[in-house]
Amino acid sequence: MVKFNYVFLRLQKTVPEVRVKFNYVFLRLQKTVPESSNSAPSWVQDVVKDVDESFIKTFLSAVDNIQIEKNLWELTKVPHMATTRGDEQTVQIMLKRWQDPETGLDQAWREEYMVYLSFPDPKNPNKVTVVSPSDTVLHTVREKEKLSADQNDTEVVQPYAAYSPAGHPKGKLVYANQGKPSDYKLLNQTVDLRGTIAITRYGGAGRADKAINAAPYGVIGVLVYTDPLDINDGRMSETDTYPHSWYMPPSGVERGSFTSQFGDLRTPYLAAKEETYRIPVENITGIPPIPIQPIGFEDAYKLICELGGEAAPAAWQGAFNCTYNFGGPGFKQTSVFNNSDVKLDIFNYEKLKNSSNVMGVIRGSVEPDRYVIYGNHRDSWVYGAIDPSSGTSVMLELTRVLGMMVKQGKWRPRRSIIFGSWGAEEFGLIGSTEYTEQYYTKLSERTVAYINVDIAVFANATLRASGMPSVQNVIFTAAKQVSAPGLDSKSVYDNWIQYSNRTSPAHGIIPGVGSMTGAGSDYAAFVHYLGITSIDISYTYDRSKTNARIYPAYHTAYDSFDYASKFIDPGFFSHQAVARTAGNILIRLADSLVLPINCSDYAESLEDYLKTAVDLYQHQLQAKHISMEPLKRAVASFRSAAAHLDQVIRTTDLANEIPLKVRGINDQLMLLDRAFLDPLAFQDKYGYRHVLWASSSAGKPTFPGLADAYANAQSSDQASDWDKVHDHLSVLSQAIEGAAHTLVDVI
Amino acid sequence: MVKFNYVFLRLQKTVPEVRVKFNYVFLRLQKTVPESSNSAPSWVQDVVKDVDESFIKTFLSAVDNIQIEKNLWELTKVPHMATTRGDEQTVQIMLKRWQDPETGLDQAWREEYMVYLSFPDPKNPNKVTVVSPSDTVLHTVREKEKLSADQNDTEVVQPYAAYSPAGHPKGKLVYANQGKPSDYKLLNQTVDLRGTIAITRYGGAGRADKAINAAPYGVIGVLVYTDPLDINDGRMSETDTYPHSWYMPPSGVERGSFTSQFGDLRTPYLAAKEETYRIPVENITGIPPIPIQPIGFEDAYKLICELGGEAAPAAWQGAFNCTYNFGGPGFKQTSVFNNSDVKLDIFNYEKLKNSSNVMGVIRGSVEPDRYVIYGNHRDSWVYGAIDPSSGTSVMLELTRVLGMMVKQGKWRPRRSIIFGSWGAEEFGLIGSTEYTEQYYTKLSERTVAYINVDIAVFANATLRASGMPSVQNVIFTAAKQVSAPGLDSKSVYDNWIQYSNRTSPAHGIIPGVGSMTGAGSDYAAFVHYLGITSIDISYTYDRSKTNARIYPAYHTAYDSFDYASKFIDPGFFSHQAVARTAGNILIRLADSLVLPINCSDYAESLEDYLKTAVDLYQHQLQAKHISMEPLKRAVASFRSAAAHLDQVIRTTDLANEIPLKVRGINDQLMLLDRAFLDPLAFQDKYGYRHVLWASSSAGKPTFPGLADAYANAQSSDQASDWDKVHDHLSVLSQAIEGAAHTLVDVI
Repeated sequence: MVKFNYVFLRLQKTVPEVRVKFNYVFLRLQKTVPESSNSAPSWVQDVVKDVDESFIKTFLSAVDNIQIEKNLWELTKVPHMATTRGDEQTVQIMLKRWQDPETGLDQAWREEYMVYLSFPDPKNPNKVTVVSPSDTVLHTVREKEKLSADQNDTEVVQPYAAYSPAGHPKGKLVYANQGKPSDYKLLNQTVDLRGTIAITRYGGAGRADKAINAAPYGVIGVLVYTDPLDINDGRMSETDTYPHSWYMPPSGVERGSFTSQFGDLRTPYLAAKEETYRIPVENITGIPPIPIQPIGFEDAYKLICELGGEAAPAAWQGAFNCTYNFGGPGFKQTSVFNNSDVKLDIFNYEKLKNSSNVMGVIRGSVEPDRYVIYGNHRDSWVYGAIDPSSGTSVMLELTRVLGMMVKQGKWRPRRSIIFGSWGAEEFGLIGSTEYTEQYYTKLSERTVAYINVDIAVFANATLRASGMPSVQNVIFTAAKQVSAPGLDSKSVYDNWIQYSNRTSPAHGIIPGVGSMTGAGSDYAAFVHYLGITSIDISYTYDRSKTNARIYPAYHTAYDSFDYASKFIDPGFFSHQAVARTAGNILIRLADSLVLPINCSDYAESLEDYLKTAVDLYQHQLQAKHISMEPLKRAVASFRSAAAHLDQVIRTTDLANEIPLKVRGINDQLMLLDRAFLDPLAFQDKYGYRHVLWASSSAGKPTFPGLADAYANAQSSDQASDWDKVHDHLSVLSQAIEGAAHTLVDVI
Repeated sequence: MVKFNYVFLRLQKTVPEVRVKFNYVFLRLQKTVPESSNSAPSWVQDVVKDVDESFIKTFLSAVDNIQIEKNLWELTKVPHMATTRGDEQTVQIMLKRWQDPETGLDQAWREEYMVYLSFPDPKNPNKVTVVSPSDTVLHTVREKEKLSADQNDTEVVQPYAAYSPAGHPKGKLVYANQGKPSDYKLLNQTVDLRGTIAITRYGGAGRADKAINAAPYGVIGVLVYTDPLDINDGRMSETDTYPHSWYMPPSGVERGSFTSQFGDLRTPYLAAKEETYRIPVENITGIPPIPIQPIGFEDAYKLICELGGEAAPAAWQGAFNCTYNFGGPGFKQTSVFNNSDVKLDIFNYEKLKNSSNVMGVIRGSVEPDRYVIYGNHRDSWVYGAIDPSSGTSVMLELTRVLGMMVKQGKWRPRRSIIFGSWGAEEFGLIGSTEYTEQYYTKLSERTVAYINVDIAVFANATLRASGMPSVQNVIFTAAKQVSAPGLDSKSVYDNWIQYSNRTSPAHGIIPGVGSMTGAGSDYAAFVHYLGITSIDISYTYDRSKTNARIYPAYHTAYDSFDYASKFIDPGFFSHQAVARTAGNILIRLADSLVLPINCSDYAESLEDYLKTAVDLYQHQLQAKHISMEPLKRAVASFRSAAAHLDQVIRTTDLANEIPLKVRGINDQLMLLDRAFLDPLAFQDKYGYRHVLWASSSAGKPTFPGLADAYANAQSSDQASDWDKVHDHLSVLSQAIEGAAHTLVDVI
């Protein structure tokens, strides 16, 4: 020892750069010295490794649009509605790819849940008819979409409303616009709704709500259709629509799940295993209490234009070349349908069926117990080329490129990456929700972030991203490194900022990132139930070019490979851009030494929310002797704690610190969103626990629970409702203070 | 670089031990080389450091019984009921000690909560009288205990039942044994309870329950006393009791909080800050609906022995030399009290008052973001020499010794240690509960364990410990290193195992460790609400020598320094043994490289619970088509996951592994109990979320929620109640499976 020290000191004299470069020297030495149990720790260099920009470049160039196209072709050969034979085929595709010895993941497997689904009866198709007083059928609504030979698979499911009860209501028809509470209220002022059938158009209210809102007025059945105004920029003719354009053909019908809750309906908060307790069917809430059925606009046209009664307001008018009347109730006297009823014969049935998630993993090298999760659902309504197979094709290309790097020994992420191909999303985000229920604790303790790419490409104009504010920056960083499709000289970021932007006090003009409210795709359970920092991205429309509510073939049998490759993304360059952007984000979250999660950007959103809340509520709350000061103090605490942590990260030489210091900081960043969970904050809303992003009906860009409680109190003016506002203010302030406590110095 | 490598390789030739001892050489080099930002990592030796046995020895020998005695003397000079002047004096003592430059902690501060407390009115003392039909007062119950001059401080609070409503009920007296539901039920079969005053004895039911159980029968007021049978081994005379022995004098009265819930009653789940939302007083549950007042047994004797009516059953008889009758209702005809009523005049009032926790911290050196918390309440009912100042004296001695080591630079724990001196425990564990509510997320993410030492010494016979099964071993390790008081040749462990033991399949005969059910002290919120691995220890009785329900001066004004030093622990050697044992546990939890938390010992408890559950419930559940297989599988999964993690710990050379590997394992161990939390499992029980240790009324040594649900279903035989059993079985199985998922390989 003495000898060596001496030698070393001598070295310093003869080799002056030794001291300066000691760190580096040391790392190299490890490679030089043969391994032995007493050799220097072999992990010192791994533990400080940061994201490798050259690897990102390699990744970006390896992502191949043609591979994505091939993936889509393979995934969309047959309809693959949840739990059908076609679904099982996609399970096998995923497993085969992810278990491939050359391009697969470390491990892949399936996980099954026995879930409560609703189907039409192929032997007794649902029927909608116009029936005369003498019981003559005057008109029968088309049972199936008009399909070309290559799309006309026998497995194409009849258009239906999943979870609509079976039943045979018959009554006079009325037009109820979008089926919102205000729509039925207005309609009911003119028409006695008892015993009627309401026809509604998609949009404005949740699917199930169109029936739930109707029932209290005595409505006994509901039809729903897609108005060409809302989906086709007004176009109605066969020659203007698919296969001649991307617009929905007259016989097209949007299918859908008619439930307002996510996860398996019979096993709330429990993973739906075979022997799991199931609540009685009659205790299920949030599904239609009366039969409801979707129909095409060619039929809706025939019904609506024959309606009698007063003309509906301008806002209720659609694209049909007639006046949309309320209904007498029923048809006008001059109509061939005069005095006739509309009859629904709904034969839907519910069944427990096995639905599979396919899971795949790349094990982390340094922190295997930290997970970045990337997922998309696998099930479609019919062929599902866009929804969801565009996303699945992108995911398969990501796993091919990353899997290949791993198999070739060229790369292994610092943290583990988990891929999820979720089942039964279309019925209510079921596969992803059951997964979060089954692995709640483990996921909650270890998950850095969840990335969701469901519909990868709605259209070719621009990136669209939603996410927690803390990850906007990693999305920006990634988007700056990817060329915009068709605009090789421009980045996805530079293109995006032209379509959507806002001015941030900290960053100036930046692209607009949406917030994670609601439950539109599989991120819901991750965001709301687990409080995991999440991102959802896709390529989307130029809103100046279309008013379509969504791409027109959505949930129809026309959402096919042919449609996708001809009208949505010819050449698959937008798919490629999404794969590159999402993959870049994924790699950064998995490989960065310090997690690319920024708490000061979260503070900015809290301040926005606070400002809105103060503007909207403070005056009235003061009158009720409810102080907003604790909330203001909490937001200020959060801001200063975030600034402090940012400074620690900026000013510490983390690569030379004890690795537990970086781990501790990363734990602070990883767990930030968990601090905003309160399992009792929204007890009447299944699965919602995140006090910032919960769904809200008040429609204000502020704290959702506060907005809802305030709206409710203002409407009732009951003391007990104002108490609830005060209570939620305390819940919210405590959560935000609690989050701030996690960001300050750890002791 | 090339040059250096070459030099280094040459070194290997000239200094052959370099390769073998490289690790060591490297560490020494760090000290030799002057520090610079480019020097080798200085943390490599710290990060693998394990608990230092020689430091433990130093610690044990430094713990001084005389210091503990002095602490107790100082803490008990005046009564220090929560929020009184005396309480503030103890706050100042704690702050002074913990901020001492030579023996203090790194930091100490106070945290205040504005909490809902209940007090008697000093200007209108509560009265209990016997009143004749002509309104003559025939007997007045003693308002104060008979105290010697040195104990007769003006601040001694009148005996009362905190949270009893004020009121002036008057009625015929009945004797209701312990006030259990079954007691009132039996009594009501013989006596019409409407309009009566019930006298009950302490024990058998919670304090508040004696009134809550009574009210439905029409009882309008309740008295409660301590029967000499239950506390004094039958002794009743002044000459047999304190100051002549440890027994309760005839005028002694046990005060107490009459609430069955923990935490501030008006701010459930919210820290009670000034502007926090408070539920309306009328919404508080779990407190007496009718007035209740505790009295001494000298008065109880006069009342009970005069009662008429039938003789109560043998099990209801106490130590008085008369037959305990039910009451006619009222007194017997031969009594001077014949036809008289008992009248309660209760003037208690409730008030929001500021209560302080005093917090102190020793910052961890390697993992400051991991906390071991050690706590005890500070507030007493009167002088509180045993409850709680015996524990506070022990805590102050621990902090003196550890603080001194830190200040002298001789020691700094690997993990941070937080000390809590909780306020307002006697009113319902308020200070500790508010603390867990305020810092929920931070504590939940970072706390390794909570150690509670409330009453440090009940008596001198043996250690008593409760804790999660996973920490039994660290308690054993610590107890083996401490000499039993008065038995220097025998360890605390060897003495303990003679008083209480069980046979473990894995370990053979070991001391019996109690489970963390219920809410007897400040561990409640840590165990039940936060799911933090907890330990509660003290020195206690030889049960063959006394049947006293608890030490006889409990919650009386006699619980003084004089009492403690003469009758509980002369010489303070039991205090010293507790300080040494608890301190040893604390140091091991703070300093061990791998946390001394054993998950296989948890598996053993789960298996015990399962066996009991199967024995008791399986037959009947099968008849109801409810399968216990998922629960069996879950327990088996947990057992095998625990065995696996144990093996990983045993077979990995952790000191030479990447530090994140040890951190990951420690996270698994630290968070184990968190996996057993379900915030919705016990929605009607405030603060109970741990599915294994929640309070249960079924009284079976098995899963508490299952036992309660089963008992309820068996009693009602309603299908919906059997559904609840099935539901809870699923909740439980999922929690245990979830815990198992966290113990297997991390990916």
